[in-house]
Amino acid sequence: MPVNLRAPDPKDLHPVAGLGIGTAMAGVRKANRRDLVVFVLDEGAAVAGVFTSNRFSAAPVQLCREHLAADGGRGGRAVRALVVNTGNANAGTGADGLARARRTCEALASHLKIAPQQVLPFSTGVIMEVLPVERIEAGLPQALAALRPADGAAWAEAAEGIMTTDTLPKAASRRCIEIGGKPVHVSGISKGAGMIRPDMATMLGFVATDAVIDAALLQPLLREVADASFNRISIDGDMSTNDSFVLMATQRAGHAPITSLASAEGRALRDAIAAVATQLAQAIVRDGEGATKFITIRIEGGRTVAECRQAAYAIAHSPLVKTAFFASDPNLGRILAAVGYAGITDLDQGLLDLFLDDVHVVRAGGRHPDYREEMGQRVMKQSEITIRVDLHRGASEALVWTCDLSHDYVSINADYRS
Amino acid sequence: MPVNLRAPDPKDLHPVAGLGIGTAMAGVRKANRRDLVVFVLDEGAAVAGVFTSNRFSAAPVQLCREHLAADGGRGGRAVRALVVNTGNANAGTGADGLARARRTCEALASHLKIAPQQVLPFSTGVIMEVLPVERIEAGLPQALAALRPADGAAWAEAAEGIMTTDTLPKAASRRCIEIGGKPVHVSGISKGAGMIRPDMATMLGFVATDAVIDAALLQPLLREVADASFNRISIDGDMSTNDSFVLMATQRAGHAPITSLASAEGRALRDAIAAVATQLAQAIVRDGEGATKFITIRIEGGRTVAECRQAAYAIAHSPLVKTAFFASDPNLGRILAAVGYAGITDLDQGLLDLFLDDVHVVRAGGRHPDYREEMGQRVMKQSEITIRVDLHRGASEALVWTCDLSHDYVSINADYRS
Repeated sequence: MPVNLRAPDPKDLHPVAGLGIGTAMAGVRKANRRDLVVFVLDEGAAVAGVFTSNRFSAAPVQLCREHLAADGGRGGRAVRALVVNTGNANAGTGADGLARARRTCEALASHLKIAPQQVLPFSTGVIMEVLPVERIEAGLPQALAALRPADGAAWAEAAEGIMTTDTLPKAASRRCIEIGGKPVHVSGISKGAGMIRPDMATMLGFVATDAVIDAALLQPLLREVADASFNRISIDGDMSTNDSFVLMATQRAGHAPITSLASAEGRALRDAIAAVATQLAQAIVRDGEGATKFITIRIEGGRTVAECRQAAYAIAHSPLVKTAFFASDPNLGRILAAVGYAGITDLDQGLLDLFLDDVHVVRAGGRHPDYREEMGQRVMKQSEITIRVDLHRGASEALVWTCDLSHDYVSINADYRS
Repeated sequence: MPVNLRAPDPKDLHPVAGLGIGTAMAGVRKANRRDLVVFVLDEGAAVAGVFTSNRFSAAPVQLCREHLAADGGRGGRAVRALVVNTGNANAGTGADGLARARRTCEALASHLKIAPQQVLPFSTGVIMEVLPVERIEAGLPQALAALRPADGAAWAEAAEGIMTTDTLPKAASRRCIEIGGKPVHVSGISKGAGMIRPDMATMLGFVATDAVIDAALLQPLLREVADASFNRISIDGDMSTNDSFVLMATQRAGHAPITSLASAEGRALRDAIAAVATQLAQAIVRDGEGATKFITIRIEGGRTVAECRQAAYAIAHSPLVKTAFFASDPNLGRILAAVGYAGITDLDQGLLDLFLDDVHVVRAGGRHPDYREEMGQRVMKQSEITIRVDLHRGASEALVWTCDLSHDYVSINADYRS
């Protein structure tokens, strides 16, 4: 039951020149579903990626890091293709898993006449199962036969091809204000919908732009965008082994190259990419497993951004807070308790203010004298709610998006493999 | 649906001389339920306590700390009474809550002709609601009229009087090997059953012994016992604002005083108290909200105890792990993912071993070649399961007890206040 989310309309997704997309039904885990996606970049494109900080990172994540390190965004070993399978995460699979991820890269590279190091592999699905790499190998010709320019329909198909427990495909797109008289496009896709609590990384998110940009700027740009989008969401606090967020720049828009992120053009491009990434990240929360509410948590007045994030995530991960929101029950003391155990060791509870949307619930650490249960109740019934906590001890703040915890979350995760 | 837990039989609970217990129905939140418990200690008893590290600690916790600091376990300001109410936690209530907790102490002190500082107050129940202190004041005469020596029936009644969402009262008792020819008794009670993830503290636990022991030894003894019992449990990762664990020594057993915890007598007493506290702590997990499985998590081979605890709690708090156990689904990669995001930044996944009871599931970071799904399935169906992870990077270990996450957990916490 996604919260205010619709399947993307291909007409709303801008094409990105210099990028091809192909999909296939490879039967990785289940037959007759789109489960293999290939991105192929024209020569000259630049690619950057951020990945899970989970120490049990999946084999494909390990290979992505290795191949991107060898790439540096340019030169004869530049990344030219991405291959994504759903149905199997190839995580917790040891040395054998790494070998199978390498075979996937080798297979695609051989078709494209490039080096295996020019391929980035991605997997999502069940953990600790052997990757049926022979099915991927067998499916690649079908995906490559279907390869076509990355237009709206191709993006929509790719969004479907990377889904796991998602109930809807997720895609977003923006056209920048023109740069040097040329329109610049940004399109992307993402998938959730459980094991979502990125940290310095994301779940699967792929964003491409035709912008012309110095390849060295791509990685810092990606990190900045990730921190403002995918790194702000949490569904269940479980950080995946496979989180990956990739930005591709095909350099085809025809304007003068962007050589600084601080320039007007650099800022315009960053804003467009951030808008796409934020919409994709929020879509993951809106389609979070069992989600019935979309909750924005804003912590203000902290001494550091880090402590604001700690408090925000403590609220976002509290099963008691999440079940109260599911029930539309303004049992808001649970929010105070979560802030209290967030690890801010010198927190003075007597300073804290809590707001639910526009309702002032707690003042100076205690229930606001004007607060009435019906006021909280009214807000709790909405499908979109903002929790705002002011710590009154500094000027830093943080923002996190999350969802509630429902019976359906338990059902979905108790049944995921069956 | 508690896991292998029965209501205590009063016959199994040893009396503790020098302690009186009285209970009443004060209607704090609901009518016709035992919700007020008073402990009264004879002169000469010593008391120690450990409390939540939640920075939003409840008003009664703040007063307990203040009164125990003034006490030091002896002298004219020694603690002589405890008063516990259920139905309202008096947390997140600001300065007004503190005033109401003080009124509770003053009321009991006035009846007993002692100073208010000689009373420790405890509250449990809903957060951020105004404590109806007038109902507690009105109930105290009834509780004091019912005051009687702490025999098995009195302990059982007190265990019932501190329950919130617990489905069963929790009590445990041991008789030490005799010390100096005199039998020594240890009895105690506890309550859960949600918002359970103590850290350097506990939920409500009260343990009393008639042992004769140097009052200065009581606090270190309590802390050691807490670390081996209540600090090892987690139900939902939500650390309460009100966790309190109190040890009372009435000094009435008649043996020569214990002056060292390292002596044979000191160790015997510690073992008996630890056994009672462990049983009480495990009882809270067995009766955890919605629990259907009792899960022991043992992390071995860590460099430090701290990192072993991090890994154990990451597993214990993972909603994905907990729902898999609820479903008896050996989706065990979720355990690897949790260890991976536990914050051990230099963890080498290639060294890790995972066992489910006696089944070797993961070797060197990958699925064990002999592991078959049905082997995991067999263990997952049990009501008591041990997860053992060997990090193979040191000699430290840690132990945590937890339960699964079921539909009933969501139902209970979505309905708690209705």
